[in-house]
Order: sequence, then structure tokens, then C-alpha cells
Amino acid sequence: EEGRQAIIVYRLPWTWKCSKLLMKSIHAGLNTVAAILAITSLVAVFENRNAQHIPHLYSLHGWVGLIAVIFYVLQLLVGILIFLLPWAPLSLRAFLMPIHVYSGLLIFGTAIVTTLMGVTEKLVFALRTPPYSSFPPEGVFANTLGLLILVFGALIFWIVSRPQWKRPKEPNSTRLQPNGDTIEGAGVSMTTNYGNTMDKSDSELNNEAAARKRNLALDEAGLRSTM
Amino acid sequence: EEGRQAIIVYRLPWTWKCSKLLMKSIHAGLNTVAAILAITSLVAVFENRNAQHIPHLYSLHGWVGLIAVIFYVLQLLVGILIFLLPWAPLSLRAFLMPIHVYSGLLIFGTAIVTTLMGVTEKLVFALRTPPYSSFPPEGVFANTLGLLILVFGALIFWIVSRPQWKRPKEPNSTRLQPNGDTIEGAGVSMTTNYGNTMDKSDSELNNEAAARKRNLALDEAGLRSTM
Repeated sequence: EEGRQAIIVYRLPWTWKCSKLLMKSIHAGLNTVAAILAITSLVAVFENRNAQHIPHLYSLHGWVGLIAVIFYVLQLLVGILIFLLPWAPLSLRAFLMPIHVYSGLLIFGTAIVTTLMGVTEKLVFALRTPPYSSFPPEGVFANTLGLLILVFGALIFWIVSRPQWKRPKEPNSTRLQPNGDTIEGAGVSMTTNYGNTMDKSDSELNNEAAARKRNLALDEAGLRSTM
Repeated sequence: EEGRQAIIVYRLPWTWKCSKLLMKSIHAGLNTVAAILAITSLVAVFENRNAQHIPHLYSLHGWVGLIAVIFYVLQLLVGILIFLLPWAPLSLRAFLMPIHVYSGLLIFGTAIVTTLMGVTEKLVFALRTPPYSSFPPEGVFANTLGLLILVFGALIFWIVSRPQWKRPKEPNSTRLQPNGDTIEGAGVSMTTNYGNTMDKSDSELNNEAAARKRNLALDEAGLRSTM
């Protein structure tokens, strides 16, 4: 049960980091691995419950978690068919991109919710002697873990919602070389330097000012980072 | 316990709707009412637990819920001091606005999380004979309620994350009269008509195209809808 939750939580941060680099194959590949792990864990949960004769999917945790995994797989299939493979028309991509971004974030948020409900359920079930309400170490430890998961989710949402950290679309690859445009000029005044973890996207930030001007029309149509 | 949760859940949708209308006073007023209700409910929870000799704040639900309410009150105070009262300099407003928007959404999401953990906790505690795992009607009912709360949260996030539903800044009030600019032109291709519930913002949508062009510089600095 907990194993499944850990996987659901840890699968999407990599997704968003890689989405910043616009390496669509890595984005799709990591999500595929994560989806396989999630499904494997779900199968393990179901088999474990069969062996112990515990009913399936009676709790809100189970309902929400199953829905999250189903939507995750659908999101992955649509993403590969429309955005990774080359045959979808641009108009379809432009229409679906905002929905893809929204549902990716929603699935991530739902995974966080599922995890925290799972932690709560497990604690209330498991901590009887001494009870959860007597502040046993396991309870405090798991509560702290839950808080950290929430903080982690909040950080991911902060990162993806900063417009200045959005990767600009490049008309050709040479535009993404370092020492392109200057970093000053548009929307970076609130940017905190990301340090070594974001080395590969420095050139993106450098191009932000120019890219922003280039991409306004595309951005309106939700086309940025679809191509 | 459940009462507190219901209030936390229902407080923010009104917030976001009113934020679309840029009626800052209503935005602040509704949030003040909601914060008072939330605090009142918290006091009721604490007094009820005192009377029943139940320890306070041992569960993840309690920790996260308390943090959410504390941040909510802070958010309200900062919002009133910086954005409602006229003395804060524009540069400070511009710096704080993206943080205000982010933390408002984060607090809303955290309230949803708290509610769903509260529902889970309550069900696992209360449903013993017959157990939660035997699909008693209360369990199925509460699960369905939890799902609806999640869907409700997802809808709010959809509404606030559509750029074409963002209220444009108006340089003077006459710009907001109906029959101003045309609705075609920028970013409204994906807009679903909101019908009667959004009557008062029709003029905003009509001005979207022109306002977008006007406000690009302000938008970059996070200034839009701060003034």
C-alpha cells in the first residue's frame, strides 16, 4: 500500500523537470516507466488483498487512487499519440496542449491527495495500542512525512507556475545556444537562480526575453512547447 | 470536525469568482467572513475535544488543517495591507502579486487535501460494525462526497488557470463598457461561454483582445489585476 503511494508521489517531479528541457522523449519515457511501476504496484496491492481476503477499493483512498492511475495511463497514451508521434495536426496539438498541461498537474495533485489519504488511513488502522492520539513515534514520523510530501508538491507547483521558467519555443536549434540574448528584459525580475540543478536550461532563460516576443501569438493559442 | 471541513472547502470558490470581477473589497470581505467561520469552527473543534478529553492535533489531518488556517489568516492580512489599502508602493504589489495568487491557490488545494484526509480519518474511526471494508452505505456516500469535493477543486483550478478568463486591467473605467472591442482576436478561441453566471464579466471578455496588448509589460511584472 505504502509502496504504491511512494511511486505515485515520486513519478511526476521528473516529468516536470524534463518538460522544462522540452525533451519530449525523456518526458514520455519517464512517465512510461512511472506508469509501469504504478500499475505493477497496483497489481501487488490487489494480489496482497486477495491473499489476505481483504475487499478491494472500498475506501476513498482507493477510489481516488484508481481514478488517478487510470487518468495517468490515458494521459500517457494521448501524450504519445498526439505530441510525441509526428502525425497529429498542429491545430489538434494547440487545442489539446492546455488540457494536457492541466490534466498532468491535476493528476499530480491527485496523486499527492491519494498519498496523504493513504497515510491517514494506514495510521488510523494501524495505530491502536498505543493509539494514534497518544502521539506515538510512528504517528509523528508519518505526519512529518505527510507534511514533507505536501511541501514537495507545493514546490513543484511553484516551479511549473513561474512563467519565466517556461521553456520558450525555438524556431531553430541555434537559438538555444548560450550567449544568445541577455537575461534582462522580460519577466525574470522575480526569478531565483536555480543553481546547478538547472544548468541545462540556462540557455532557455537567456533566450526568455527574445522568445517571449517571438511567441506571443503561439502562446495565446496554447502552442508554446507543443512543437 | 466535519463542519470545519465544509467551511474550509466552500470558502474559496467565491473568492475566485469575485477575483475575476476585480472587486477587491468583495474578495477581501468574503475571505474575511470565511476566515472568521473557519476560526470559529476550529474553536468549536478544540472545545469539543476538551469536553471529550480527546488530545488535540495528533493527526496529519489536524497538522495540515491548522497550517492551512494559519496561512489563510496571514494571506488575508497581507492581502488587506498590501492590495486593499492604498499605501503600498506599486513595486511591492508587483513583487507580491504572483506570491499572493500562488499561495491563495495553494491554501485552497491544502483545504481540499485536509477535507479528504478528514473524511478518511472519520470513516476509518467511525465505521467499525459494519466495517468500512464491507461497503456500508455511509462509506459509499462519504466516498462519493469526497470525489465530488475533488471534482469541485479541479473545476476551480481549471477556471483560474484559463488565461482567457483572466480579467484584463483597465486603464480607465469607460474601457469596461460593453460593446468595446470585439471578442475575437486573442486567446478566446478555447473559451466556453460561461452563460448567466458570468454576466458581469462579459465586458471584460469583450475587452480581452485589446487589454492583452495593453498589458503585456505589466503582466510580465505580475502587475495585472493588482491595481
